Amino acid sequence: MRSPSAFTDAFRGKRVLITGGAGFIGSNLARVLVKAGAEVAIMDCMKPEYGGNLRNLHGIRKQVDLRLADVRDRESLPGLIGGRDVLFNLAGQTSHLDSIQDPDTDLEINCRAQLSILEACRHHNPGIRIVFAGTRQIYGKPDYLPVDEKHPIRPVDVNGINKCAGEWYHLLYHQVHGIKTCVLRLTNTIGPRMRIKDARQTFVGVWIKNLIEGRPIEVWGGEQLRDFTYVDDCVDALLLAAARAEAAGRVFNLGGIPPVSLKDLAELMVELNGSGEIRVKSFPADRKKIDIGDYYADDTLIRSTLGWRPRVGLPKAISRTLDYYRREILHYL
Amino acid sequence: MRSPSAFTDAFRGKRVLITGGAGFIGSNLARVLVKAGAEVAIMDCMKPEYGGNLRNLHGIRKQVDLRLADVRDRESLPGLIGGRDVLFNLAGQTSHLDSIQDPDTDLEINCRAQLSILEACRHHNPGIRIVFAGTRQIYGKPDYLPVDEKHPIRPVDVNGINKCAGEWYHLLYHQVHGIKTCVLRLTNTIGPRMRIKDARQTFVGVWIKNLIEGRPIEVWGGEQLRDFTYVDDCVDALLLAAARAEAAGRVFNLGGIPPVSLKDLAELMVELNGSGEIRVKSFPADRKKIDIGDYYADDTLIRSTLGWRPRVGLPKAISRTLDYYRREILHYL
Repeated sequence: MRSPSAFTDAFRGKRVLITGGAGFIGSNLARVLVKAGAEVAIMDCMKPEYGGNLRNLHGIRKQVDLRLADVRDRESLPGLIGGRDVLFNLAGQTSHLDSIQDPDTDLEINCRAQLSILEACRHHNPGIRIVFAGTRQIYGKPDYLPVDEKHPIRPVDVNGINKCAGEWYHLLYHQVHGIKTCVLRLTNTIGPRMRIKDARQTFVGVWIKNLIEGRPIEVWGGEQLRDFTYVDDCVDALLLAAARAEAAGRVFNLGGIPPVSLKDLAELMVELNGSGEIRVKSFPADRKKIDIGDYYADDTLIRSTLGWRPRVGLPKAISRTLDYYRREILHYL
Repeated sequence: MRSPSAFTDAFRGKRVLITGGAGFIGSNLARVLVKAGAEVAIMDCMKPEYGGNLRNLHGIRKQVDLRLADVRDRESLPGLIGGRDVLFNLAGQTSHLDSIQDPDTDLEINCRAQLSILEACRHHNPGIRIVFAGTRQIYGKPDYLPVDEKHPIRPVDVNGINKCAGEWYHLLYHQVHGIKTCVLRLTNTIGPRMRIKDARQTFVGVWIKNLIEGRPIEVWGGEQLRDFTYVDDCVDALLLAAARAEAAGRVFNLGGIPPVSLKDLAELMVELNGSGEIRVKSFPADRKKIDIGDYYADDTLIRSTLGWRPRVGLPKAISRTLDYYRREILHYL
């Protein structure tokens, strides 16, 4: 974990709530905030199909106020949100396939709960700052590359539609109710504490698991270009988005690590792991329908507006992730 | 009501369900379908805040199967949807202000119920054809005029966000599950059987009521340009969208009546009514936040693809509407 920097000082003594705070990004954020001297509360449902994992909080468990609550339980929201200075709103259903098979659950988490959270802020804590974890998925199949924030919005699955609604609710509550909300559209975030037991968060998780367990990596297609953000750089962006006044009411793409083809990524991972086998397969039919081809973000807006500077390149991102799971894999299966 | 034409013949003997079928557009559609020899079922919750009104079914009440059911009651959907050839999915919450004040109800009707309807189709009647009533509201404040279907989507209120999700679900169920869905993005539809007791459907309703009751028309601003569709022309478009194979998976703007400023519209209405007073007022603050300025649609796509031809101009649209409410006003207050 990175040392606190100038902008983490802004969080000393601040009362912060992180929804999905026992998950991948939330727990990495919580660790930085604890070190920065913030008063950190975490709301997480800890249900096995989502990202929450107690191991993610190892070492900070006593320094955070962990509430086992689901963002869908609207009655618990006012009590959790009241009195906070900042809300990092990261809880979400992230699986595209699950969203097609069970659209209602995706809607409950990614739309309805988001509205309930915003209504709780409006009625009980309108001065709160909110940073919402959006997704590049809402752009759909890109018209042009790299994709900037002006690219048309055209989601290709239920998850993308609902995440888009969730994002728009946040922006609307800024415009209509004056609540200071900011949206980051995340791309593939990778690093320690990501879900690796299946592809619900990212395919990279499964690749990491298979590499460490000595099983082949399955690459579907392989030519698609994708960009990545190392989780510490994502945490920096979240903190900047909460700390900087200019962020209110704005939307920013995240990127960071330049695009790489999935096949090249797989080869780099095998190389950094010291061993491994790659199997290139054609795309399964159910995934092909919702695949978006090449994607990489133009992230100049957050760089120029908030001064975000990603600091970790792809080899280091992968090495650190592999190192973490070599030690910790038993807690993540 | 217009006589059945070549394309209404396609509905003879067809089993049709209309959600919101006791409302403004739904009931006008039902009348045409009954005359065309279709077997018409109507699903309507008849709640006073929405468009359903038994008077709208006067004269066809015995020829339609009216089910008092709410689209939010998901348990009733499979039974209503199973066995139908066509679904005209018109039920919706239409008030922008209500959606800001009570976003959850808007979400229940305009998002969740839409997903439930589509899931019921997927599981119980995947061969059904669906026409969904979308809205021009999802374009937000136009970047250019007239607005074609390629214009960026940028809703400015909760209703717009949720209607957009509802539209996208319909298109996605075509793309992923092969269900033949079509979306019409309606602009201001006017005509007999619209809601006039308040502005929940359209401001024109309240103007009609005030004119007939001898009270002044309030025009907010007045310079804004808006376009209109006479309800019979909207019904034609719905029927074409259901009948034509080319419509599946497509989105079409409706327009029809060329743009007119609200002040000119008010003056024309006073003229056609033979009397009336206009009061121009500045925009109320809560409405100004979600106002979109000028709007009018480019409707060439539906004209060229489906051969839609609007047949009623503004003076006739207003005269017919005034005539209707002069006779019927007591049923609409």
